[in-house]
Amino acid sequence: VDLVTTALAGNRRAIARLMTLIENGQEAARNAIAQLYPYTGRAYLIGVTGSPGAGKSTLVSQLARAYRSAERRVGIVAVDPTSPFSGGAILGDRVRMRDLFTDPSVFVRSMASRGNLGGLARATADVVKVLDATGFDPILIETVGTGQAELDIAQLAHTVVVVVAPGMGDDIQAIKAGILEIADVLVVNKSDCTDAERTAAALEMMLELGSGHGARRSALSSDFMRVAADDASQSAAAATDHWHPLLVKTCALVGEGIAELVEAIAHHRQYLETTQELGLRDLTRLVNELERIVRDDLMKALLNGIDQVSLSDLVARVVAREIDPQTAARQLIG
Amino acid sequence: VDLVTTALAGNRRAIARLMTLIENGQEAARNAIAQLYPYTGRAYLIGVTGSPGAGKSTLVSQLARAYRSAERRVGIVAVDPTSPFSGGAILGDRVRMRDLFTDPSVFVRSMASRGNLGGLARATADVVKVLDATGFDPILIETVGTGQAELDIAQLAHTVVVVVAPGMGDDIQAIKAGILEIADVLVVNKSDCTDAERTAAALEMMLELGSGHGARRSALSSDFMRVAADDASQSAAAATDHWHPLLVKTCALVGEGIAELVEAIAHHRQYLETTQELGLRDLTRLVNELERIVRDDLMKALLNGIDQVSLSDLVARVVAREIDPQTAARQLIG
Repeated sequence: VDLVTTALAGNRRAIARLMTLIENGQEAARNAIAQLYPYTGRAYLIGVTGSPGAGKSTLVSQLARAYRSAERRVGIVAVDPTSPFSGGAILGDRVRMRDLFTDPSVFVRSMASRGNLGGLARATADVVKVLDATGFDPILIETVGTGQAELDIAQLAHTVVVVVAPGMGDDIQAIKAGILEIADVLVVNKSDCTDAERTAAALEMMLELGSGHGARRSALSSDFMRVAADDASQSAAAATDHWHPLLVKTCALVGEGIAELVEAIAHHRQYLETTQELGLRDLTRLVNELERIVRDDLMKALLNGIDQVSLSDLVARVVAREIDPQTAARQLIG
Repeated sequence: VDLVTTALAGNRRAIARLMTLIENGQEAARNAIAQLYPYTGRAYLIGVTGSPGAGKSTLVSQLARAYRSAERRVGIVAVDPTSPFSGGAILGDRVRMRDLFTDPSVFVRSMASRGNLGGLARATADVVKVLDATGFDPILIETVGTGQAELDIAQLAHTVVVVVAPGMGDDIQAIKAGILEIADVLVVNKSDCTDAERTAAALEMMLELGSGHGARRSALSSDFMRVAADDASQSAAAATDHWHPLLVKTCALVGEGIAELVEAIAHHRQYLETTQELGLRDLTRLVNELERIVRDDLMKALLNGIDQVSLSDLVARVVAREIDPQTAARQLIG
């Protein structure tokens, strides 16, 4: 019996081995994913992101426990080298999460960040597929950071939870510019801190101003997306993006506010299901994934077709300012 | 007389118009860049990055004033919608920086973040080329955030200044994982705050532990880089990366520590010049730029070669889980 069949039967060791194949970028992984793919598309994907130290991991572990108490099989993917799930944090954190590591209905996978962010996004999407196909639902995806990582989560998850630590009152401008736009649910964590109320109040005010939710999402549309998704999907996307991000205050360390967060996520899911958005997010995610693979594979094909000497020569001329990068690119492709 | 010639003669309006062409991605920009390119490679590029609210903009404006007092012509590129340079912040900040906006030897350009991060990186690199060719030196590049944006700065700048706000004592793990690895100079800003000493002490300890500087940089090497740079460059890269990040405490608002920061940057520059690293950073930057352009242009060529209906059909089959994205990508390319 092959690895995929064993994994689909629920064998944890087979699941872990598949993930290792994926992380190592092996050809066998491609075939396995092709085999698994028809079984995907069932799990609900929840992204949890925010700045370092906001308490994402603790929040993820509390969420996992909440879903476990509802008899759900929970997948956790940590794309964050500092996460306790990745073994990157202090021992105390791991001890606090021991119940999750030993629970047979929880699968924790840490994605090693090996520098190549593009490859990481691709591998993460595939690891999520493995969890999805093998019956884990929901799947919690924890990533650190602002910028591209957040955008990638926005594309991968059905519901994006952005965690904000209190005491950022003066940085509201910054939050406004980046984070609010991808949040479906905003969490102000550690609500025992003195600044939490002020942060929450400021965020609430901004949410009421309806600050640009959806702007970032529509901006995701690449040329590829525009060509690949038909007109109906695109006008539907334009029409349905009226979700108003929910605000939840939590103190993850002691479990306060977790029930409210679970409810907020469920509420957002219901919204996605009653509008056409759930299907649209699936579409967006898959088109983006397809685009990423096409880009990578085109590049690989190009590299296979040129010899190292002539590429090195061309680069040397660019460095010597004899030829500009765009002209050089044309020569390489042409 | 054409736009490029006028810009090279120092005409500010021509320079601004070139930058607008670039931002709008117009074909005319390509030709202009090709014309300008032989005049580039002279400016020293300083990246300033860090989390929102760390005080990057104030620091950049103080750095600009310091270089102005040494009669340098200073370019400022703000890739941050919340930067006062972008008009995104409160009026008070802009008023404080009025001297820079009205100084004929300072050129401030804000890059609008229009969602397409790939395009933004490409446009920023080209705007920096315009400033470089028209005699601005140094060029200060301010970007927000962790993740991909920082990596891109690391590739664009000769010296990367990472600004850290105090009070992050508990988040050292997070800093360790991401920011330290790309910092040539670490700034603890707002050193009047109570937590600054503690933050600085913790960072200093980590710097002494020699925590992973260069790990991120070498991880940047893509397949493309491996093929494009010759063996000599690569072994030189491996041999010379022994810079030990400098730590500077500043209170940018009142100008404290700015002289020390200027000195730290000069020190790093000297290091780059006495080793082979300056040339290597130039090489890395240009190879990465070339790779980005090749990727984009390959994608455009692919999209021009397929009709919308068959691409939409393929996507529909992926969404229906009939065919997995990797197999679909093969069909598209093949």
